[in-house]
Amino acid sequence: MHIPSPAIAFALLASLTAARAPAAIRERAVEYRDGDVVLEGFLAYDDAKVKAGGSPAPGVLIVHQWLGLTENEKTRARMLAELGYLAFACDVYGKGARPKDRSEAPGFAGKYKGDRKLFRRRLELGLGELRRQPGVDRSRLAAVGYCFGGTGVLELGRSGADVRGVVSFHGGLDSPSPEDGKNIKAKVLVLHGAADPFVPAKDIEAFRKELDDAKVDWQMVYYSGAVHAFTQKEAGDDPSKGAAYQANADRRSWAAMRDFFEEIFGQGR
Amino acid sequence: MHIPSPAIAFALLASLTAARAPAAIRERAVEYRDGDVVLEGFLAYDDAKVKAGGSPAPGVLIVHQWLGLTENEKTRARMLAELGYLAFACDVYGKGARPKDRSEAPGFAGKYKGDRKLFRRRLELGLGELRRQPGVDRSRLAAVGYCFGGTGVLELGRSGADVRGVVSFHGGLDSPSPEDGKNIKAKVLVLHGAADPFVPAKDIEAFRKELDDAKVDWQMVYYSGAVHAFTQKEAGDDPSKGAAYQANADRRSWAAMRDFFEEIFGQGR
Repeated sequence: MHIPSPAIAFALLASLTAARAPAAIRERAVEYRDGDVVLEGFLAYDDAKVKAGGSPAPGVLIVHQWLGLTENEKTRARMLAELGYLAFACDVYGKGARPKDRSEAPGFAGKYKGDRKLFRRRLELGLGELRRQPGVDRSRLAAVGYCFGGTGVLELGRSGADVRGVVSFHGGLDSPSPEDGKNIKAKVLVLHGAADPFVPAKDIEAFRKELDDAKVDWQMVYYSGAVHAFTQKEAGDDPSKGAAYQANADRRSWAAMRDFFEEIFGQGR
Repeated sequence: MHIPSPAIAFALLASLTAARAPAAIRERAVEYRDGDVVLEGFLAYDDAKVKAGGSPAPGVLIVHQWLGLTENEKTRARMLAELGYLAFACDVYGKGARPKDRSEAPGFAGKYKGDRKLFRRRLELGLGELRRQPGVDRSRLAAVGYCFGGTGVLELGRSGADVRGVVSFHGGLDSPSPEDGKNIKAKVLVLHGAADPFVPAKDIEAFRKELDDAKVDWQMVYYSGAVHAFTQKEAGDDPSKGAAYQANADRRSWAAMRDFFEEIFGQGR
């Protein structure tokens, strides 16, 4: 082989060392408003990656499950930051407005699922906060959502939001206004537990028809044995309850999301 | 940063250079037999990767579409070799036995789809050839198949073959002996055109039931707008014909296969 000069060798090594430097994840709460209602999201990014070379980073909006913005979404925001994305977990419910426990969750989620206009507005405000962050590439945005938030990212798509892709993790697929499918500019990735009892076959059928009619580019992945909430450790490990964590589906769906982002953000692997 | 000695720097660079050396793909025809019938498969591997350090490489069996082993499978074998796998495209039909054109293909494929015992034997013989190649890790094997070959890899699974995973690209999902699902040791990945008119909904339903009943770990990905043969450029680009190439589904299904292999072969990304 050709032996490079020590200077070149050191320069190469230095660049490799920089690329492999431990992530310096920055995070903070971000307040924003819907009229009089204060919302509190959570921002995370890798200081080294977002600022390195001054090139802006793709931004990812995270939409929470029905308990509201919790440690779940913060963890995902940090994981996305480690991948080099600027991640913003939005707050649909409002600062401090959280179900006490699972029994109160349907009431909270139902308010927004029953008023999609309000739901979309809160999501668009979250996206607006992401767009306004320094270091974000406004032309390369995506949204991911969990359960309730999976329904949410599809509504965000139907609102005509300018995002390259939306990813639903075990989200509900019902829509009261399938005619809005024509507004979807985003590519759509649905990551679905094949044994999820909370997503009826008729919803899946209607969802596919809506997106096909609108010529939306969509993909849907079924994970065997996985039920609702398969990415959420808090859901326990008993699938007979209809909601449970499944390590395989969690890991695989994250990998599918990564591939999807690499495609829509124009990154090679 | 800590400045390493020039010797260490050069050693690191040398190892990096080796890892990034251009692939040296070796390929050759391999004859084997089923009794009096001569079969001719195609082997490909990256000489540098398979022999480097003496550690054996995972092996991937490729099962052809209904036209038999063609340039399609050879191309995939080379692509798999570039990923570091030892790839063997088997020959179900026999040396020189090829449909003259598409009109003869159903007759060829039908012979094996109608005699699953014979089909399985040919597939097992192909797997046997893969297992016997120097440099292959017999504990890390998988099979991928296209169309007819997608049906094939599932039959190979049902035969109880000792492979870690099988991947079907736009394969038929029908099975005359769903009770054999219990023999499947492999994880199963089905990559499916959502608009494929040749895979009836009842076959998908029966397939899912078979694998769920047998507690097989399976995943299925739907690609919107994709019809049969979506990985095959020869199929043209008119989906209204029921079979057509689709670049998105081709690229995405390959990425899904890569993730799957990295999981089952215990490779990090």
